[in-house]
Amino acid sequence: MSRIVRAGVIGCGYWGPNLIRNFAHHDEASVVVVCDAVLERAQRVAGMYGVARATTDPAEVISAPDVDVVIVATPARTHAALAKAAIEAGKHVLIMKPMTTSVEDAEELVDLAEQHGVIVAVDHTFVYTGAVRMMRQLVESGALGEIFYVDSVRINLGVFQSDVNVIWDLGPHDVSIIDYVLGGILPTQVSAVGAAHAGSRRENIAYLTMRYGPNVVGHVHVNWLAPAKIRRTIVGGSKQMIVYDDMQPSEKLLIYDKGVTIAPDDDPEKVYGELVSYRSGDVLAPRLDDREALSVEVDEIIRCILDGGTPTADGAAGLRTVRVLEAAARSARDGSHPVELDADHRTPMTPLRIVSESETRTASAK
Amino acid sequence: MSRIVRAGVIGCGYWGPNLIRNFAHHDEASVVVVCDAVLERAQRVAGMYGVARATTDPAEVISAPDVDVVIVATPARTHAALAKAAIEAGKHVLIMKPMTTSVEDAEELVDLAEQHGVIVAVDHTFVYTGAVRMMRQLVESGALGEIFYVDSVRINLGVFQSDVNVIWDLGPHDVSIIDYVLGGILPTQVSAVGAAHAGSRRENIAYLTMRYGPNVVGHVHVNWLAPAKIRRTIVGGSKQMIVYDDMQPSEKLLIYDKGVTIAPDDDPEKVYGELVSYRSGDVLAPRLDDREALSVEVDEIIRCILDGGTPTADGAAGLRTVRVLEAAARSARDGSHPVELDADHRTPMTPLRIVSESETRTASAK
Amino acid sequence: MSRIVRAGVIGCGYWGPNLIRNFAHHDEASVVVVCDAVLERAQRVAGMYGVARATTDPAEVISAPDVDVVIVATPARTHAALAKAAIEAGKHVLIMKPMTTSVEDAEELVDLAEQHGVIVAVDHTFVYTGAVRMMRQLVESGALGEIFYVDSVRINLGVFQSDVNVIWDLGPHDVSIIDYVLGGILPTQVSAVGAAHAGSRRENIAYLTMRYGPNVVGHVHVNWLAPAKIRRTIVGGSKQMIVYDDMQPSEKLLIYDKGVTIAPDDDPEKVYGELVSYRSGDVLAPRLDDREALSVEVDEIIRCILDGGTPTADGAAGLRTVRVLEAAARSARDGSHPVELDADHRTPMTPLRIVSESETRTASAK
Amino acid sequence: MSRIVRAGVIGCGYWGPNLIRNFAHHDEASVVVVCDAVLERAQRVAGMYGVARATTDPAEVISAPDVDVVIVATPARTHAALAKAAIEAGKHVLIMKPMTTSVEDAEELVDLAEQHGVIVAVDHTFVYTGAVRMMRQLVESGALGEIFYVDSVRINLGVFQSDVNVIWDLGPHDVSIIDYVLGGILPTQVSAVGAAHAGSRRENIAYLTMRYGPNVVGHVHVNWLAPAKIRRTIVGGSKQMIVYDDMQPSEKLLIYDKGVTIAPDDDPEKVYGELVSYRSGDVLAPRLDDREALSVEVDEIIRCILDGGTPTADGAAGLRTVRVLEAAARSARDGSHPVELDADHRTPMTPLRIVSESETRTASAK
Repeated sequence: MSRIVRAGVIGCGYWGPNLIRNFAHHDEASVVVVCDAVLERAQRVAGMYGVARATTDPAEVISAPDVDVVIVATPARTHAALAKAAIEAGKHVLIMKPMTTSVEDAEELVDLAEQHGVIVAVDHTFVYTGAVRMMRQLVESGALGEIFYVDSVRINLGVFQSDVNVIWDLGPHDVSIIDYVLGGILPTQVSAVGAAHAGSRRENIAYLTMRYGPNVVGHVHVNWLAPAKIRRTIVGGSKQMIVYDDMQPSEKLLIYDKGVTIAPDDDPEKVYGELVSYRSGDVLAPRLDDREALSVEVDEIIRCILDGGTPTADGAAGLRTVRVLEAAARSARDGSHPVELDADHRTPMTPLRIVSESETRTASAK
Repeated sequence: MSRIVRAGVIGCGYWGPNLIRNFAHHDEASVVVVCDAVLERAQRVAGMYGVARATTDPAEVISAPDVDVVIVATPARTHAALAKAAIEAGKHVLIMKPMTTSVEDAEELVDLAEQHGVIVAVDHTFVYTGAVRMMRQLVESGALGEIFYVDSVRINLGVFQSDVNVIWDLGPHDVSIIDYVLGGILPTQVSAVGAAHAGSRRENIAYLTMRYGPNVVGHVHVNWLAPAKIRRTIVGGSKQMIVYDDMQPSEKLLIYDKGVTIAPDDDPEKVYGELVSYRSGDVLAPRLDDREALSVEVDEIIRCILDGGTPTADGAAGLRTVRVLEAAARSARDGSHPVELDADHRTPMTPLRIVSESETRTASAK
Repeated sequence: MSRIVRAGVIGCGYWGPNLIRNFAHHDEASVVVVCDAVLERAQRVAGMYGVARATTDPAEVISAPDVDVVIVATPARTHAALAKAAIEAGKHVLIMKPMTTSVEDAEELVDLAEQHGVIVAVDHTFVYTGAVRMMRQLVESGALGEIFYVDSVRINLGVFQSDVNVIWDLGPHDVSIIDYVLGGILPTQVSAVGAAHAGSRRENIAYLTMRYGPNVVGHVHVNWLAPAKIRRTIVGGSKQMIVYDDMQPSEKLLIYDKGVTIAPDDDPEKVYGELVSYRSGDVLAPRLDDREALSVEVDEIIRCILDGGTPTADGAAGLRTVRVLEAAARSARDGSHPVELDADHRTPMTPLRIVSESETRTASAK
Repeated sequence: MSRIVRAGVIGCGYWGPNLIRNFAHHDEASVVVVCDAVLERAQRVAGMYGVARATTDPAEVISAPDVDVVIVATPARTHAALAKAAIEAGKHVLIMKPMTTSVEDAEELVDLAEQHGVIVAVDHTFVYTGAVRMMRQLVESGALGEIFYVDSVRINLGVFQSDVNVIWDLGPHDVSIIDYVLGGILPTQVSAVGAAHAGSRRENIAYLTMRYGPNVVGHVHVNWLAPAKIRRTIVGGSKQMIVYDDMQPSEKLLIYDKGVTIAPDDDPEKVYGELVSYRSGDVLAPRLDDREALSVEVDEIIRCILDGGTPTADGAAGLRTVRVLEAAARSARDGSHPVELDADHRTPMTPLRIVSESETRTASAK
């Protein structure tokens, strides 16, 4: 392989051009061919970024001998077939979120990639932001203490997707953020509530709940029908807590040195008594890496292709996210009953490293 | 009865003195006796508001011949017994939220009050705020169109209650707001997720979901372990939407003239296609009645006692709220499985007046 | 002239490419040549927008027979000479803000343009935003009543300009906004306070005060050394008031239906007495035209060139702004003493149409 | 003197009762007599806080043998006469802001207090807040580096005062905050712009500028005619910068680790060139003392009376503030021309300790 990663991009809609721009502007990459169902769209984007070839036929991209990595930026339901063909043609793939719209498809892609020795990367853009990487670091270092919960809200008016519901469209952002912040982890249980309004046949508002063992909770509110734009993730820990508000123009991440300690009150008179003490210290907005997340992501993929290594948002991360989304979609459809998830060799149930011994003991003693 | 409503107050903790102040300062009311387990506390509050008698014995308040209305401002688990005794002594009662900690108790109070011809009022303070009354009015008038969902968040660090979990402590606020805004309505199904952290034995974070028929969703996030204080209720409708942010110093209620219209796309090529059109107009922050909610509430109770009538937050509203909370607490304890609610004569399942014919038809055809 | 306006652009730094993009994408315009001191920069921008020629020589742009309008997007101190040459070559000109760095130069450009029958437009971008146009409309229609003051703050950390101080760099935005909102008006008096910090020889923080007759005040705070980004203009009127906060992602403009009425208190006992009554109604965030301001501006210039007419931000507006800035810079240098401005035929002292008779009478009776 | 400080309070309007409450609830103080022009008002407040005597005659308070400190909480124009009488009767005095409405009066009070050996304290409440004390500490410790400017905004609709303009009413807050934060310092020059709108005869909007030596600027915007409530003070320094936003419910004070360094560019080609480098680090919201400012203030005065010592907001601070306000009022009346202030023995011109050698040198070399 040359020391230039040559990309072929399928899909020149809303998001595709951003990827094309980042590959085109990268010193060690180039875009050699772009594809879209609408030829004019492909040609216009090719013109903007100096791409030599434009086509309407995905097979031209997938089979091109001068393409090292195929970027799949098409509607979600088409991801699996296109990525499968690309992998089988020996190409690395970078797939927009959600990786696929079924666990079965995602598993097949992971397996195929392993067989063919190619990289599968998923465009979980947010895990490449300075804010989310800082959150991961704070959780991993133990600065937050035991993690109690992650609560994530992503609501706005529109943009309605043409082929998936809001769980599959906005859900991947929050589910992949939580997965990444907690260290790459499959919940033990998922449930969801959804509703389809305004005449649509697909859920446009949904609440997802993920449980990680007996007591740690992840919760996601995704909504295409909200009047105001809110994108906010809260992480509650025993030592510190985080509010990540992506709508702030600056100081997006606040670290609160706050907490509560509760001890049983042994006074026999107070049957229900607990001794609660509050702690409240400084709030810190750390300086964040403010590079465009997509450029960090694209750079990492290029690094992995040229030098080896696994992307942060690899096939396993994509698969874990799809497992959660599929379970959530099923729960939403089936009366919101919780769906149990089982670990398997592709998505092992990693214990939360940040859960202390004592917490685990308390939990299991329940 | 004289034209002055004479109140006796049991409980001089955090909230009690606010009620004492409002009754004491009202032209047509007076506080004749206050009671607290700690005599000094009762005496100090009595001194501040010129109340003649202070006692540690609730029975003294309940049996006092010069008391017209007993205010029960004690911990939640004691509400039922105190209110029952007061009603049986022929007193009107105003009970702090939650009315009781069991449906059985709440039903008994409603029945007893009817037998004794006295008023049961519940301190659902928020339904007396200018913002929530405006929300009700907008829903009732049809200005919002069909109601899609109500999403309510009430989170902060502490204050942990000594005898109930966060569902029973903060939940009554949001559940009663949603009940009132939707016109006094029992959900058909309730589920909840809860977790007890920081060494506590009681849930300190919870998510409640209420379904009203097939498609209208109410959702509540209550949390004692959040680093920042958020109190925000969103109402999504087909014509307009509301964001009520109680933490704003002014312009707490925003009415968004925004919406989405979705029509099936009959183009046979587009299997999943829907034609979506967005509408976005002005945002209005209407002038709100800014009287203290508690003074509006106290004034209404005094009016009802003197002139007859039923308080906005009457026993039936208290009971509906307790039914939701009890179901939520059960669901949270039992793996988050949804709990069905049945209408009965005390809490009939009022249809959402604001749901249009077409919506109902679509929903039932599913 | 063909029905396509052919632009030549001098300056491909920070702002130039935005103009190139807007001319290049306009149906009735094209960019035929771009110029920059750094050839690579000119070539790169030419490549991005399909411009045929790139040069380092401004004269090539100015003398090109296929150029209808010259866009001067160079550092401020070079505007006058370049624009003068272009006008004398019979070209229309669009000059970045500030139009020039001296009143003398601006006057010369206005006179020359008149002689040569060409259009001088100034890139007062903000007057083309939906928010500022709405403000103008509200003032003009009398909806605000009598105008009391306009207060404008534009502060942030950097970006320091290489050839002018903060008065000449950020000042044009606020001065041109106030000029436009008040209907194109020269203040009677200008004063300013400035300070040069952090080792710079040029003012990087300044306060400008403009007086319009005896009682109407405009005030501007511009600052390159502020830790947070604030861009906010307040207009106080007798009937309504406006807050325009450009940092808000939405609802940038709030119209407050608020006011105060003051009447002298004739009670002889109260020597200083005045009877004040407050009025507080709804707050409205009107839907704003959300087109990119620059595209509205470019479209207007193209319209004027093709069909005749005068741009909103014409040479006279540019000159008025330069007169205020020059006076402010002089006041800041000379101990902050107020500088009187005299009307002349190029910048007549238009009376504030929105000032009522009574206000004028009160003021002159002082 | 007993170990209980006995206070007599003149003025039971808006602010007086807050002082009465704080003295009445303090362990080492009591309120023995209250006075108001309206007897019922005095009696009602006396009743609320258990004060034995209520009167309409200030002389009764001033001459009462059991009064140690007289609190002057009357309209501004009456402060001087009442405080003078109290001092001459040998009482300590605590005077609401502004201390007096003329420099002459303030000087007389300071001199008299010295002669009579009593304490003069001024109710500059904000200098007792946790936020402002933290600001002072950060400036004093050198954490901010050289101070560039302090910008303070305090605007809202109303409340119009009955006997002074907005400079004398709101101005004392910001002027005393700046005075305190900069270490107790008299500006060398003051100018102001004012306007009287809405039919009032007194300025209801004003801008004050204070210069401290050649380059440090203080600026204040006070306004009774603004639609939104803003209370925000920015301190710009060479190492760090502060934004204190008093309208935030929490995190009122943000410390920005941000700055700019500018060096002359010696490249002879670049006549105007300067090399600018930006620095941007974390933002910290330190935990602040959240006690009620007034209780901190009252406690300090009681300590000074019982144990000796000088209050933070002593007569000298009050006098410095009045000197600035009087100069500002004069400038506003006289065409906004700057007024020079001379140091004298009562208000010496303390150099800004936080201004470095190099800054001073640069400044004087100008």
